[in-house]
Amino acid sequence: MSERMSAIQTGPDSKALAKQFSSVRSFSERLVAHLAPEDLMVQSMPDASPAKWHLAHTTWFFETFLLAEFQPSYKAYDPAFRAVFNSYYKGVGKHPVRGMRGTFSRPTLDRVLAYRVHVNAAMERLIDSDLPESARTLIVLGLNHEQQHQELIVTDIKHAFWTQPLQPAFVESSDEESRSAPPLTWSAFDGGEVEIGHTGSGFSFDNEEPRHRVLLQPYKLANRLVTNREYLAFMQDGGYHRPELWLSDGWDTVNAQGWEAPFYWDRDGQQWRVFTAAGTKPVNLDEPVCHVSFYEADAYAHWANARLPLEAEWEHAAASQPIRGNFAESGRFHPTVAPSADAPQFYGDVWEWTASPYVGYPGFQPAAGLVGEYNGKFMCNQFVLRGGSCATPQSHIRASYRNFFPPQARWQFMGIRLAANAR
Amino acid sequence: MSERMSAIQTGPDSKALAKQFSSVRSFSERLVAHLAPEDLMVQSMPDASPAKWHLAHTTWFFETFLLAEFQPSYKAYDPAFRAVFNSYYKGVGKHPVRGMRGTFSRPTLDRVLAYRVHVNAAMERLIDSDLPESARTLIVLGLNHEQQHQELIVTDIKHAFWTQPLQPAFVESSDEESRSAPPLTWSAFDGGEVEIGHTGSGFSFDNEEPRHRVLLQPYKLANRLVTNREYLAFMQDGGYHRPELWLSDGWDTVNAQGWEAPFYWDRDGQQWRVFTAAGTKPVNLDEPVCHVSFYEADAYAHWANARLPLEAEWEHAAASQPIRGNFAESGRFHPTVAPSADAPQFYGDVWEWTASPYVGYPGFQPAAGLVGEYNGKFMCNQFVLRGGSCATPQSHIRASYRNFFPPQARWQFMGIRLAANAR
Amino acid sequence: MSERMSAIQTGPDSKALAKQFSSVRSFSERLVAHLAPEDLMVQSMPDASPAKWHLAHTTWFFETFLLAEFQPSYKAYDPAFRAVFNSYYKGVGKHPVRGMRGTFSRPTLDRVLAYRVHVNAAMERLIDSDLPESARTLIVLGLNHEQQHQELIVTDIKHAFWTQPLQPAFVESSDEESRSAPPLTWSAFDGGEVEIGHTGSGFSFDNEEPRHRVLLQPYKLANRLVTNREYLAFMQDGGYHRPELWLSDGWDTVNAQGWEAPFYWDRDGQQWRVFTAAGTKPVNLDEPVCHVSFYEADAYAHWANARLPLEAEWEHAAASQPIRGNFAESGRFHPTVAPSADAPQFYGDVWEWTASPYVGYPGFQPAAGLVGEYNGKFMCNQFVLRGGSCATPQSHIRASYRNFFPPQARWQFMGIRLAANAR
Amino acid sequence: MSERMSAIQTGPDSKALAKQFSSVRSFSERLVAHLAPEDLMVQSMPDASPAKWHLAHTTWFFETFLLAEFQPSYKAYDPAFRAVFNSYYKGVGKHPVRGMRGTFSRPTLDRVLAYRVHVNAAMERLIDSDLPESARTLIVLGLNHEQQHQELIVTDIKHAFWTQPLQPAFVESSDEESRSAPPLTWSAFDGGEVEIGHTGSGFSFDNEEPRHRVLLQPYKLANRLVTNREYLAFMQDGGYHRPELWLSDGWDTVNAQGWEAPFYWDRDGQQWRVFTAAGTKPVNLDEPVCHVSFYEADAYAHWANARLPLEAEWEHAAASQPIRGNFAESGRFHPTVAPSADAPQFYGDVWEWTASPYVGYPGFQPAAGLVGEYNGKFMCNQFVLRGGSCATPQSHIRASYRNFFPPQARWQFMGIRLAANAR
Repeated sequence: MSERMSAIQTGPDSKALAKQFSSVRSFSERLVAHLAPEDLMVQSMPDASPAKWHLAHTTWFFETFLLAEFQPSYKAYDPAFRAVFNSYYKGVGKHPVRGMRGTFSRPTLDRVLAYRVHVNAAMERLIDSDLPESARTLIVLGLNHEQQHQELIVTDIKHAFWTQPLQPAFVESSDEESRSAPPLTWSAFDGGEVEIGHTGSGFSFDNEEPRHRVLLQPYKLANRLVTNREYLAFMQDGGYHRPELWLSDGWDTVNAQGWEAPFYWDRDGQQWRVFTAAGTKPVNLDEPVCHVSFYEADAYAHWANARLPLEAEWEHAAASQPIRGNFAESGRFHPTVAPSADAPQFYGDVWEWTASPYVGYPGFQPAAGLVGEYNGKFMCNQFVLRGGSCATPQSHIRASYRNFFPPQARWQFMGIRLAANAR
Repeated sequence: MSERMSAIQTGPDSKALAKQFSSVRSFSERLVAHLAPEDLMVQSMPDASPAKWHLAHTTWFFETFLLAEFQPSYKAYDPAFRAVFNSYYKGVGKHPVRGMRGTFSRPTLDRVLAYRVHVNAAMERLIDSDLPESARTLIVLGLNHEQQHQELIVTDIKHAFWTQPLQPAFVESSDEESRSAPPLTWSAFDGGEVEIGHTGSGFSFDNEEPRHRVLLQPYKLANRLVTNREYLAFMQDGGYHRPELWLSDGWDTVNAQGWEAPFYWDRDGQQWRVFTAAGTKPVNLDEPVCHVSFYEADAYAHWANARLPLEAEWEHAAASQPIRGNFAESGRFHPTVAPSADAPQFYGDVWEWTASPYVGYPGFQPAAGLVGEYNGKFMCNQFVLRGGSCATPQSHIRASYRNFFPPQARWQFMGIRLAANAR
Repeated sequence: MSERMSAIQTGPDSKALAKQFSSVRSFSERLVAHLAPEDLMVQSMPDASPAKWHLAHTTWFFETFLLAEFQPSYKAYDPAFRAVFNSYYKGVGKHPVRGMRGTFSRPTLDRVLAYRVHVNAAMERLIDSDLPESARTLIVLGLNHEQQHQELIVTDIKHAFWTQPLQPAFVESSDEESRSAPPLTWSAFDGGEVEIGHTGSGFSFDNEEPRHRVLLQPYKLANRLVTNREYLAFMQDGGYHRPELWLSDGWDTVNAQGWEAPFYWDRDGQQWRVFTAAGTKPVNLDEPVCHVSFYEADAYAHWANARLPLEAEWEHAAASQPIRGNFAESGRFHPTVAPSADAPQFYGDVWEWTASPYVGYPGFQPAAGLVGEYNGKFMCNQFVLRGGSCATPQSHIRASYRNFFPPQARWQFMGIRLAANAR
Repeated sequence: MSERMSAIQTGPDSKALAKQFSSVRSFSERLVAHLAPEDLMVQSMPDASPAKWHLAHTTWFFETFLLAEFQPSYKAYDPAFRAVFNSYYKGVGKHPVRGMRGTFSRPTLDRVLAYRVHVNAAMERLIDSDLPESARTLIVLGLNHEQQHQELIVTDIKHAFWTQPLQPAFVESSDEESRSAPPLTWSAFDGGEVEIGHTGSGFSFDNEEPRHRVLLQPYKLANRLVTNREYLAFMQDGGYHRPELWLSDGWDTVNAQGWEAPFYWDRDGQQWRVFTAAGTKPVNLDEPVCHVSFYEADAYAHWANARLPLEAEWEHAAASQPIRGNFAESGRFHPTVAPSADAPQFYGDVWEWTASPYVGYPGFQPAAGLVGEYNGKFMCNQFVLRGGSCATPQSHIRASYRNFFPPQARWQFMGIRLAANAR
């Protein structure tokens, strides 16, 4: 799992597209090749899905939106799959209730893998044919879609393994990092009228468009992510017990759920431990805090006399930075200690909560056709996260990329970067 | 209930403040003077509160934040009320669970009215004394707070009366309006950098500040609210059964709740009827549609090939308009047919859903002290509404005023104004 | 409230029936005459009902089952009441959802009292007329029905007053009892074939019939109810924390509800206090334990190496005892310390949980007509209680009387008598 | 799966016990040998468990209650399993929440099968050793326990396969039965004092003891089970829409769940179909109706002017009948048409709901030790069923056998036999 790949692009070159197709598709299978079929079937909560379902649904995407549309002679692997592996596209028809995916013992993993082989072969023929540009665009969308599900495979298996009593590890344990996090410093930005949104000829999701100007006040951003040490100080200062630090909905959630620490943390006597992809281990105080909700990120920022960044502030600052960091390809699936004071850790490690509710940009138009259900219909009660995580494929991320989750979500690799007003 | 009052202001003039105090406080009592004590005790859902509770809680505000702080000799009417009538101020201490307010048979209405007399008398002495500016500001805040609860008294009694089987009327029925709604036309705006937020020396809530510049694209706004006739066309075109028109959360809500029409509507054979403050009557097709959620407003706008306005678009357009319209003082508590094509109906009638999630303005600081819990802690999972309604006191509203409710809320007087991009 | 009345009987004597009618009906009003209209409107949980609703529903019974059936010229006080005050009789038509009764501000109490006057007058005329026996039987049923609701008025107001923050008292506090409970001794019974079920010519509910023979093993019963002192010993021995003492459903309920003591108990430091009809006071250790569920009664009996009595065991033992004790007429509404070792306290004070699920007797037939929904349809997931309580009118109870509640119910005056096998 | 085995018995013969042990244990594995590991992992509702869990839990029983207690040198296969595969024995310690069993991808099926081999080998040595009688009794209990889980394996896989979209079949389809059900006739019984409860030296569960006398009225029982044809007549007569036929809780359940037919039925146009172990097929009108709740059985009996039998009536009638019928060993897992008018179908096919709530017999004592949690703690809110089903191993059933389920349960093979009073 050490490959590096540049961003997936559409273009006239069928060979390049075929290579990208093969590379992305095979990465999904490699992610779970060492696991048992039973591991790939667990759905530990309605928000998460079985890995087998992810493998099938990403294949369904190509079958439904490409092969069924552009390949008249295509014969479905199993016509029933059109409904079975539809996630939520109402335009495609009825689909199973999300929370029941863990009951799908059939098709078995063997058949899902055969389904992938069947669709891959047909897709290779399609890619090699004389395709309209719209189809090539959809293929690239399908690959980006699969990369999103690759990230979910990681986060959902982590949750599935944590849920069950034996709590197996997903990857072998790596050496502990012994370096210290650099001191927290601030970078100042002038603000003013800046441009955000996707630029250039590469792929982007519809929600990154149109590029447009926004007006920013002067601001500053922390040079690194908030660490476990800092977050623990918040906890020890009564952070989870002081209503004045929390949004009202957040305070209700803290009390209803009994939150006392980030997700996956538990206390063994005086020692805080954390469940990771490599099993349970003591919390490393220098690592970025991870698996916190928007509510916790916001409360921490209040406590620290700071705030979360606006997504435009983040993008404006990050756009000039190289896309380097700790991504899925490392196979570690755990955030790392910040490498140095001048490497701002914008990309990889953890998704960074922003203060921005997820809404459409001015002039936003959902993508045409069935895939128009991809992004726009979720623009409500979610907040934007930026920068990718240790479970994101590196070629999937860019400065304008907008991820989004409800404020109470914690099972993704989610962390905190502080911002503040500059004067 | 025909008084007109200019906006409540703080200032050096104790006489003026005393007059405003008396005017606002007595309006609360006049709103419900014709009802039985039992009517004032109903809590028909956790979101709504009994009118008696509103009468007591608004009084508690003055006792807790003014008399207890600035009047050392003040003797509480009943020390138990400090906890009993606290709504949600964690800084003041424990408070009853919101959904249990309908069980408070004690204090009886008689005692609550005596409590009001007791606090009013103490407040009059306080206002007449040598007060620090901060206290005068709090008094004006308390009066605006009471005006907000006056609106809730109307909407909550409407809900309480609709809930119970005999469905009594809150006001006497007035003559039916026979005029037609003017045709829908559009006003175009250039956009660019505009200023929004409170300006001038008058009172505003902390969430209207600081005034700041925002960058707007060219846009246009409808000259009047969406009517029942237009909304019925959406319904008859399958609006409630077409997932492609809805936000994902909205579609889930429509199906979970079985929504088929605006709240308070029901069908009597082929005829749609609506429960109003004056009882049930046939839907008047020329009136503005009312009691729709954000989800319905957004779906309607999609269906109409338009969108909801941003709050900055709305404020920029409305700021130049006089604050005239159909307010609580009319005692009608029901929206009216738009008077003419050139009266844009920005103020009164119905709160207008905007496309803007409720967040703090750049540089927002919650008010200092206990009242800091007033606004900021609700900045999550809510959308901004603008312009006031037929249940809002006229002196309470202004162009920069920001109301907010969760996207599924329907029991307030909430309606729709369309917006669109201009090119 | 000190009247004594002999059991309500049907018979040819219209004068006697009219007197009973007047006596029972007026007792309902006297129970709540000292309260505010708002007090009579509280519904503090779906299982309980507002006192105003009880006053109206008992009147509805006479209007629906007697006046509408046997008095052709009768003019309904308000035809809407037929639906509004129907509790659950599907044969009468649609009825409001039980949990919404607390929203009925209309009709106001004044109108409900006028409704009672209207129906009473018509009933007096009806009683004085030439009535078929079936109608006379229904009148007596209606009076017994009203007595059941008199008990519920007491238990539901107690709950309503406990729920609200000011926790008012329902009656004035009486002197504390200072006598000690007598020692617990056992009475042995041979068992064998015994008869249970209603006997004689007086009134009984359909569920007390037919009288029939049952076969009992030799058994013994405690001479008095379990006291607070004994129950506290169970608590201090870890009773609420030892799963082996509990039914599985009971253990789940204890943990889900966080039960640590009987209902209405709370701890003030080291001191257990109890909320009574006369307000909160320290637990009197000699009084019978009260407000315990079947689960608690059963767990206590296990802990005490005993069991709960079968209903046939109880009835066989109690049938020979005089119906004397602490009933609603005392106006105390609180159980008393057992008077002596030879007064077995079978009647009054607290309903006694039996080990018998509530099922129909062999050959049971529901009463004919609409009132057939009275008892039979509840014969599922409930347990039988015997003997009446301090909130039961004395003339309402008899040895064969079967009360029933789900095993988790606690808000009635419910207590424990121990039984055991004899050898 | 055609073996026949006589009832499992304890006794001095180690060889016989070893043979029974091997026979019962291997039957569990044969039941699911043709399925995929993923099939054995589905938990489609909290009431059901994955087949893999059943395989492990039945093994845990022997490890925990036999090997850990009587074999000092025994080394656990995996010490973690003691908690992981505990179902509900609080005396053994903490156990996972029931509804999460479907998340246990680990141990994989391979390891569970190895666990079985490990425990089987140790058990064979134990059986061959000089064992106290109490241990031999526990082994027989363990085998009966495993047979109960064999039935659950069948019913839970049926549910799991029905839940998932592809609805696979569990067994190959057999030929359709073409014979007609015999006419319904009645057998009369005198009643009087009869004995019920376990008799003889064979194994029984604690809840079948002590044998005791009960007094019965004269009664009659139908000569066969209610058929689909008869039940369909009830449906077509509005059975699911007539509240007067239902218990109050039943009526609420019908409406809350939207019941219109037995579980596993659905309508394909005018044709009723049913999901069976062999997949979906048209309803055979001559087969016994199956997968109905107690509520439906009781409502049907009311509609048919009959009632359900008491468990004592059933046992008294069935005790003289040979234990023959359609059991798990047939591998059909579906009820059959009644063979003839004089074969009363008491055993096998479907469990027969009785009118008797599940309570302890007079003098009932739970088994000593940890297994005392087996039966007694469930004696609340359940009804007794008699006779075994097409998923019950034949050697597991006897006349005194008491099964029990809550009145709303439907996923077991549950049906209806009518009873009536004789005069």
